[in-house]
Amino acid sequence: MHTLWEDRFALRTDNIKSSAIRELLKITTLPDVISFAGGLPAPDVFPIEQFRRAADVVLTEMGESALQYGTTEGYQPLREMIARNASKYGLQISADNVLITTGSQQALDLLGRIFINRGDRILVESPTYLGALQAWNAYGVKYVTIPFDEDGMQTEMLESRLRTGIKFIYVLPNFQNPTGVTLSRERRKQLVEMADAYGVPIVEDDPYGQLRYEGEHLPPVVVLDDEMRAKEVPMYSGNVIYTSTFSKILAPGLRLAWVVAPSEVIKKLVQAKQGCDLNSSTLNQYIAYEVANTPLMKTHIQTIRRVYKERRDVMISALEEYMPEGVSWTKPKGGLFLWVTLPECLDTSTIFKTAVEKKVAFVPGESFHALGGGLNTMRLNFSNSKPDLIVEGIKRLAEVVKAEIK
Amino acid sequence: MHTLWEDRFALRTDNIKSSAIRELLKITTLPDVISFAGGLPAPDVFPIEQFRRAADVVLTEMGESALQYGTTEGYQPLREMIARNASKYGLQISADNVLITTGSQQALDLLGRIFINRGDRILVESPTYLGALQAWNAYGVKYVTIPFDEDGMQTEMLESRLRTGIKFIYVLPNFQNPTGVTLSRERRKQLVEMADAYGVPIVEDDPYGQLRYEGEHLPPVVVLDDEMRAKEVPMYSGNVIYTSTFSKILAPGLRLAWVVAPSEVIKKLVQAKQGCDLNSSTLNQYIAYEVANTPLMKTHIQTIRRVYKERRDVMISALEEYMPEGVSWTKPKGGLFLWVTLPECLDTSTIFKTAVEKKVAFVPGESFHALGGGLNTMRLNFSNSKPDLIVEGIKRLAEVVKAEIK
Repeated sequence: MHTLWEDRFALRTDNIKSSAIRELLKITTLPDVISFAGGLPAPDVFPIEQFRRAADVVLTEMGESALQYGTTEGYQPLREMIARNASKYGLQISADNVLITTGSQQALDLLGRIFINRGDRILVESPTYLGALQAWNAYGVKYVTIPFDEDGMQTEMLESRLRTGIKFIYVLPNFQNPTGVTLSRERRKQLVEMADAYGVPIVEDDPYGQLRYEGEHLPPVVVLDDEMRAKEVPMYSGNVIYTSTFSKILAPGLRLAWVVAPSEVIKKLVQAKQGCDLNSSTLNQYIAYEVANTPLMKTHIQTIRRVYKERRDVMISALEEYMPEGVSWTKPKGGLFLWVTLPECLDTSTIFKTAVEKKVAFVPGESFHALGGGLNTMRLNFSNSKPDLIVEGIKRLAEVVKAEIK
Repeated sequence: MHTLWEDRFALRTDNIKSSAIRELLKITTLPDVISFAGGLPAPDVFPIEQFRRAADVVLTEMGESALQYGTTEGYQPLREMIARNASKYGLQISADNVLITTGSQQALDLLGRIFINRGDRILVESPTYLGALQAWNAYGVKYVTIPFDEDGMQTEMLESRLRTGIKFIYVLPNFQNPTGVTLSRERRKQLVEMADAYGVPIVEDDPYGQLRYEGEHLPPVVVLDDEMRAKEVPMYSGNVIYTSTFSKILAPGLRLAWVVAPSEVIKKLVQAKQGCDLNSSTLNQYIAYEVANTPLMKTHIQTIRRVYKERRDVMISALEEYMPEGVSWTKPKGGLFLWVTLPECLDTSTIFKTAVEKKVAFVPGESFHALGGGLNTMRLNFSNSKPDLIVEGIKRLAEVVKAEIK
């Protein structure tokens, strides 16, 4: 008897779709394609020599423990370093508030796993990060969206949505993926207060917080939430679950990120993570600690900021020079992405095919809309390509767009 | 308003329990405790110097790509190496039949994710691997068990169970975790034929297949399944999903394992994995390839076999010397574990507490029984402790058992 696999897959797999971005990455790695599609950091700013030395130190001095299984919670010195760094932003936490995850993607998956019952409603920005939608689709979630403008989610519309019953609010306050937009200080406060009033937790996804190229640092939502509370307990016990990653400040090849949350949430995440992968790579956690826990780290982040700022500026100049009238884009103060809006009549999914023929790639904006829409939008990554390629790529893209407008 | 987290967790988290093994690992890492509890390989046989050189080569020559995101399927040369190695066992597969996962634990989780609908019935050996039960509990599975003797699952009881409707059969044919027992050749054949007759897929978990210390190699279930089929298609398209890991032959700190399956199953697993962690660590995949794809690998596995065989022999001798009458144990031909059965009246969960006071640890057997039972059994790991500690640990354990029998 021949097994008919198609009949055997679980119902939830109907909701698991291959990520548009991941599939695009395959096309866009073809030679000669200038890709603004991925969310890739620039490999030329990876601190490769520091990694090489760190790997050497770890394997020479701590090889036996670095190659062994580790605790699910993560490597203790790394958790403590993250707790110490949080205090620089005014958040008092201990290692018990920190879980190391296998990339932010795992943090999102674990949050889905511990919070989402089939049919639960999650509030997301529109547009929002595709990877989060993909992670939570597998749990049978329903999305409620909140519109977005140049200051981030429109918090004046929050209350009407929270009244409908929301499991948690998902927000990317800094240089949002996909738009590059930053949530204003005033709206951060409103978000925190409203979520607290309705007892709805916030998931704050902050991969790019340290990659600000201009303007003043804004406090993370988790810090504002903490400030609002009377301090009866020494460690953070508020309403926000915060996640960030080493992928953008060190290297994504490590697959290391972290969650900061009240310790009872961390405990539940740890139980869920045990069933998923036991622990994140011990070796990589040791190496990441060696690289990140040095004064050089500060210099390294400054280098990334300098390089990405230049690329952002080059991309914006090129858009100004080559794009026809009727096309607009965001001007992000940090991060990896900007967001382009074409005239309403155009469909970027169609344009994508022509663009790839002309050897330039992006991600069509529709993928980032939980409830559809955004047909005339696209996400451009400016971190991964060198300046001359950015100019050439935008030139090609502008030609494709011009041809469509005609 | 203070968020009451306890009220917010998803229903499925009631099924997610902290793994007994993981929690035990914490207790048993206390100084002076001789632990037979974990499933830890011996750190003294990790090929640390080869890892150090491999990390150096990878970061010197391929740093930019090794530190970047990778494809979800895994590093192509590593997948191809695994496909080549499979052909040594008579299985014709290509890289399209291989997925790299973040440890075998992720393979088990992904299989749960793509196959299990709430209430589905999975057939497992009794006892079976705790980590599999933990992974699948999160998906609301129901277990059906099949009894076990010194030749593995009693396949003559298979048909009655398959008649009741089974989503898949989970089997660890070689030096099973927790018992150390090997499924006989005859029973492997019966398993494959019966599963085929009823159209029920088999998940074959084989972490220890290469760690045989005596007796002849037996073909994996996947190979027997393949041999049974007429070869209309060049690549494997049968009824078995096979998984193995680098954790036991290289190092668990890498968190790298693999799945071999028909390509349509691999595609579905890839989609599920995208939502879980995007890809397994690129850096570790490059390093694992550098270490594993050399002639030295063969020598390294021979070293592990020699060291573990000695430890097994030392443990069995110590059991013979110190254990009182009425206590029996398996004599595994490979792997990391043996299984001890005490007189029926004893409960190893109670004995565990006394044992830890006397500075020796094991895993109570009940944890490995999907439907309960096995109160008088325990799993002992012989790979992780050096011979003199094994003798001392068994001596302590025997004293605890003797005191209980009185």
